[in-house]
Amino acid sequence: MKLEGKVVVAQGGGPTAVINQSLVGVVLESRKFQQITKVYGAINGVKGIVNEDFLDLTQETTNNLERVAVTPSSALFSTRDKPDEAYCQEIFKVFKAHDVRYFFYIGGNDSADTVRIVNQQAERSNYEFRAIHIPKTIDNDLVLNDHTPGYPSAAKFVAQAFIGINLDNRALPGVHIGVVMGRNAGFLTAAASIAQKYPDDGPHLVYLPERAFKTDEFLADVKSIYDKYGRCVIAVSEGIQDESGVPIITKLEQKERDSHGNLQLSGTGALGDLLAKLVKDNLGIKRVRSDTFGYLQRSFLGCVSDVDQREAREVGEKAAQFAIWHNIDGSITIHRTGFYSVDYQLSRLKDVAGLTKLMPPEFINARGNNVTNEFKYYLTPLLGSGMPSASMLRAPRAEKLLEK
Amino acid sequence: MKLEGKVVVAQGGGPTAVINQSLVGVVLESRKFQQITKVYGAINGVKGIVNEDFLDLTQETTNNLERVAVTPSSALFSTRDKPDEAYCQEIFKVFKAHDVRYFFYIGGNDSADTVRIVNQQAERSNYEFRAIHIPKTIDNDLVLNDHTPGYPSAAKFVAQAFIGINLDNRALPGVHIGVVMGRNAGFLTAAASIAQKYPDDGPHLVYLPERAFKTDEFLADVKSIYDKYGRCVIAVSEGIQDESGVPIITKLEQKERDSHGNLQLSGTGALGDLLAKLVKDNLGIKRVRSDTFGYLQRSFLGCVSDVDQREAREVGEKAAQFAIWHNIDGSITIHRTGFYSVDYQLSRLKDVAGLTKLMPPEFINARGNNVTNEFKYYLTPLLGSGMPSASMLRAPRAEKLLEK
Repeated sequence: MKLEGKVVVAQGGGPTAVINQSLVGVVLESRKFQQITKVYGAINGVKGIVNEDFLDLTQETTNNLERVAVTPSSALFSTRDKPDEAYCQEIFKVFKAHDVRYFFYIGGNDSADTVRIVNQQAERSNYEFRAIHIPKTIDNDLVLNDHTPGYPSAAKFVAQAFIGINLDNRALPGVHIGVVMGRNAGFLTAAASIAQKYPDDGPHLVYLPERAFKTDEFLADVKSIYDKYGRCVIAVSEGIQDESGVPIITKLEQKERDSHGNLQLSGTGALGDLLAKLVKDNLGIKRVRSDTFGYLQRSFLGCVSDVDQREAREVGEKAAQFAIWHNIDGSITIHRTGFYSVDYQLSRLKDVAGLTKLMPPEFINARGNNVTNEFKYYLTPLLGSGMPSASMLRAPRAEKLLEK
Repeated sequence: MKLEGKVVVAQGGGPTAVINQSLVGVVLESRKFQQITKVYGAINGVKGIVNEDFLDLTQETTNNLERVAVTPSSALFSTRDKPDEAYCQEIFKVFKAHDVRYFFYIGGNDSADTVRIVNQQAERSNYEFRAIHIPKTIDNDLVLNDHTPGYPSAAKFVAQAFIGINLDNRALPGVHIGVVMGRNAGFLTAAASIAQKYPDDGPHLVYLPERAFKTDEFLADVKSIYDKYGRCVIAVSEGIQDESGVPIITKLEQKERDSHGNLQLSGTGALGDLLAKLVKDNLGIKRVRSDTFGYLQRSFLGCVSDVDQREAREVGEKAAQFAIWHNIDGSITIHRTGFYSVDYQLSRLKDVAGLTKLMPPEFINARGNNVTNEFKYYLTPLLGSGMPSASMLRAPRAEKLLEK
């Protein structure tokens, strides 16, 4: 029996370069089904549902949807709200009033948990209803997934940024520290390693939250590289922690937290400045710079992986197909089936919600200050076609005539 | 009479996305002339000359030169050295020993001044010699030039970054402050204005070094925008100054200076953090973020204007042609002759060297907190073909049923 009613699609958490591909995948696929009476987009995620702030996407042109698909950040805007029971009852009041029978929420593990709670409520109140979580996060930290839409494009940005920083640092030598997002997972920071083309290319050091950050080892590492090359490029994850699991950034000052209790790690240059000062003060190197990549890495217009675009579109389409054709709930997960191909499955919400995937040990070197080739093998196909690379001059040295 | 001898080409100052186009323009054009015995590239600018650190670019493949041309940053590496008389005598000792008769220096106004001094020395010592300055700077602050190679690509990066930041800020509202390079000139920061596509798009405020930065007006501006839109995106130049011409960043701490006496403005998130704190403390807005674009804006791989690429190549070619065909010295300057076309001229070194061009008054609004359409008309053709833009959903709002 076909379940007739409206679709609501929403976007939660931090924006990505391809989150609108998933939105457009849901909308275009849902609009094909006769039992779908309308396709609504909730403005500002779950907050828009309780406020009945809906766009009627059944009345959006396909042409404009395709243009929105290639626009980064969340076209329906976002929220950090995480519904509790009372919030969920409000959501249901609205869903029932509007005869919403399908709910698609594009987001990370917090959003997956929201879908799980909403779904529980539906079961309890015997309201026939399908809810599907569509994966998205630049942090790449969703369990079960080989990788997550949004990550490949952000990784491409980080890789291209470090290729440039490495060249800049070679031209005007010194120490450069680049601070990358990713919270507790090091995948995004690890993407910097793609810049290592020529033997002396940076980043020479890569620090991840998966390994304890020890100040003395950090300084010894920097000194060793600087003594060898006269320069040092370092990629550091915003979420690096000491041996007790205390984020290094908290050693600075009281930081603000979002409504999920997550620490504010971005939108400040503090961690980079702290590390730069450490190097200056302890190693006596004069030219030490730090860049915090900030919001550019998740919303920069014009740096996108075509593999990521395609997959983000497909997880949206598959979500609509699973829910509408097959009448089942869950979280869409991406599984690698070759080098390089993927398959989409529907996994149980409780197996994804609220959990965090970290870099596996085989992606990190023994000293914990760089990545392995295994990681580069994992990342390379995700960056898609047309990944640029840098070229150096290879001309021979001219003979010196003045014997200096 | 043809002046026979070697060519030396070098790159000075901060890297850009297209500085290697100019290098390759010089090399390929010079290699066509029979009187050019070799084409040398000096490693690390003038420092490489005194150390006789030359690459023999006559022995570089054309294919690799073309690959280097599309690689950002200075392939010959750079220097902040600024030669004095003694330094220049060392340069001459080397030039004479190697029979160097043509010197091309790609750089900003400091580099132009270096060429001027070297040229003076040649005249004094009756050494027949041609020296040409080839313009390059993301700051766009060379006088006589309509614009400078390197600026359009950096401007494209800044524009694309602000398009993304505006979308991000719309999805998760708050105040966002983006700090952009440019030293005493506001051209690069002003490029953020290209993100203003839809009526409420940011950056809503643009602060340039050409206008005194007054803290109370800044706070009033931010409050006014935030009250209107519930969010505010701000572009700030790293070089903003107070009414007495004191850089705002010096109000923070003792900053380091480079060998030209220039203040270190980049490679730290300090200015952004200071302004964010100002807004938080005075306006009571909770979500205030700042991003300092840092080195990404001058060396990011994969964000380049094709107009900039072409012009950077041509200034290199023209430099070789002026020197070798016409036997004259000077600084290559770019002149706009239509919408959009340019012409290259050879100007006198003393008319360019050491001088700084600022944003003309017609590019800045009366309140000094944004740019005019006149500026956008100036910038748009420089961004080249394929400049991406963002698209918003235009679907109608759905009717509310619960009367909240």
